[in-house]
Amino acid sequence: MGEMRIKAIVYEAHGKPEEVLRLEELELPAVGANQALVRILAAPINPADLNQIEGKYPIRFPLPATPGFEGAGTVEEVGAKVRDLAAGAQVILPHDLGTWREKAVVPADKLTVVPNDIAPEQAAMLKINPITAWRILHDFVRLEKGDWVIQNAANSAVGRAVIVLARELGWRTVNVVRRAELIEELRAAGGDVVLLDNDELRSAVAEATKGAPIRLGLNQVGGESALRMAKVVAAEATIVTIGAMSLRPVTMPNGLLIFKNLTFTGFWVNKWYEQAGAEERRATFAQLIDLARRGLLATKVERAYSLGEFREAVVRAGEGGREGKIIFRM
Amino acid sequence: MGEMRIKAIVYEAHGKPEEVLRLEELELPAVGANQALVRILAAPINPADLNQIEGKYPIRFPLPATPGFEGAGTVEEVGAKVRDLAAGAQVILPHDLGTWREKAVVPADKLTVVPNDIAPEQAAMLKINPITAWRILHDFVRLEKGDWVIQNAANSAVGRAVIVLARELGWRTVNVVRRAELIEELRAAGGDVVLLDNDELRSAVAEATKGAPIRLGLNQVGGESALRMAKVVAAEATIVTIGAMSLRPVTMPNGLLIFKNLTFTGFWVNKWYEQAGAEERRATFAQLIDLARRGLLATKVERAYSLGEFREAVVRAGEGGREGKIIFRM
Repeated sequence: MGEMRIKAIVYEAHGKPEEVLRLEELELPAVGANQALVRILAAPINPADLNQIEGKYPIRFPLPATPGFEGAGTVEEVGAKVRDLAAGAQVILPHDLGTWREKAVVPADKLTVVPNDIAPEQAAMLKINPITAWRILHDFVRLEKGDWVIQNAANSAVGRAVIVLARELGWRTVNVVRRAELIEELRAAGGDVVLLDNDELRSAVAEATKGAPIRLGLNQVGGESALRMAKVVAAEATIVTIGAMSLRPVTMPNGLLIFKNLTFTGFWVNKWYEQAGAEERRATFAQLIDLARRGLLATKVERAYSLGEFREAVVRAGEGGREGKIIFRM
Repeated sequence: MGEMRIKAIVYEAHGKPEEVLRLEELELPAVGANQALVRILAAPINPADLNQIEGKYPIRFPLPATPGFEGAGTVEEVGAKVRDLAAGAQVILPHDLGTWREKAVVPADKLTVVPNDIAPEQAAMLKINPITAWRILHDFVRLEKGDWVIQNAANSAVGRAVIVLARELGWRTVNVVRRAELIEELRAAGGDVVLLDNDELRSAVAEATKGAPIRLGLNQVGGESALRMAKVVAAEATIVTIGAMSLRPVTMPNGLLIFKNLTFTGFWVNKWYEQAGAEERRATFAQLIDLARRGLLATKVERAYSLGEFREAVVRAGEGGREGKIIFRM
């Protein structure tokens, strides 16, 4: 099919996204025998994308680079040796590509097929937050029906996925938030218990759960919030950190480690993608796709922007108090 | 055999050991059918004992109480139903008895038999530190021959047991100490690498280990020392906290949890005794007894005191810079 020119967002140096990003035309290579040409339809703006553009993320793409860890689109063409993938299929893109572009040529085995009845926006957003929630609910503590999980920043995308997935699995959630107006909203979303992140948390949790042991905690805040969580969970519980919204480290009185025997660890979905085998990836996605088709994993989108509106989009994505995700819709 | 009066150290209120302890005469009950009468020969003074007397330990004995988590002695008499235990056997005492006394009547199944060719002082000191070292080297990370372990406070009793046990298991140790004069001593004791706990630690470790990954860390210090260790160990390593000599908490930058994916947890030997089955206890002791018979687990004793010298003994046990353990020798 010869040379093809597409539009893509590009940065040549790290810095503030609204200052360093540009919309450029790139030339796409021909589709190789084991590759596929994908027309990208939706790509969200995640905090990790903004951090990466600023040079503050542990993974840096070689410069010049196109940002975007997540995206979904439609296969337009496959190489001669590609099996199990055909034009017209909806796919989720790998995280090392840079998804903020119109099209991409991608090794076919790095694509995850998603049924066409899931909207591209929602398909694109399965890759980081619902996968993170699913793995955290499975990889650290063996939970059984009726067991409790606690999380702070429960209104985040991961937090909402945790609420949905835990409910689906038969586990119960204590959801901790900073703003009182979120309490009813998260209850409506399926949160069993929703409480404010303050000094009364411990007694409020004990009352709401009737003192049941909480053996798994998910921390996205750090600092005082993580410490409060450590005091609420049961002895020998595990607290998994995936974010640090407070920008403060997790500080643990030694007694919580030694005598209460808590375990603090972390999870990074990029590392999971590197380490999980193809079968484990497929199996995890299969479960989430089923939930997504049933409408259970829909992530709220505040607004979709075109690639040309990238400055407005990244500025809005960096602000607090949004009504939902900011995404590109190509 | 009727009433028997023995001498025991007793406290009726929590406080400074030298102020609240008294030497008293107690009456022993008759030996029940499933019990044994043990003449206690040696009982060390551990930091946990002093903390407990002060009321600063998570386990408090009902008052009035006799202190002492560790002790060894000789069986003098067994109850009618006791099998597998006879007068003359050397035994290690359970941790909930209070060992700072001449004799005790104990449920026979709570005693661990130790060969008579191990000195009572050494038998008594197997129960906390070598067991802690053994479990930490086995229960958290699966290590193989040639793998590295790092520990701070390497000159402590647990630290020295780690050096001996790791060497026996074929694992290598990076031993971190505060005082330069300990370097040669710990090398002579079998430490593969001994380094000072300062800002050059990371490069010094990398040089000494040729950059080999260190997947297990043992932290007895907390604060800056624990943080330095976290920066030295490999991604996905586990750091086990068993002490807090710096009296400062472990503070973890969130990146070490999320991106480096470290795990921080703790170990408390009392909890292990509660949870381990009799068979697991026996199997662990069997390994340590073998090493002790070969003279590999000898703990240095600075001085043995009689029960009557308890004030001098507890004061000395509370001081730094000792040449070895303080113990009671009855």
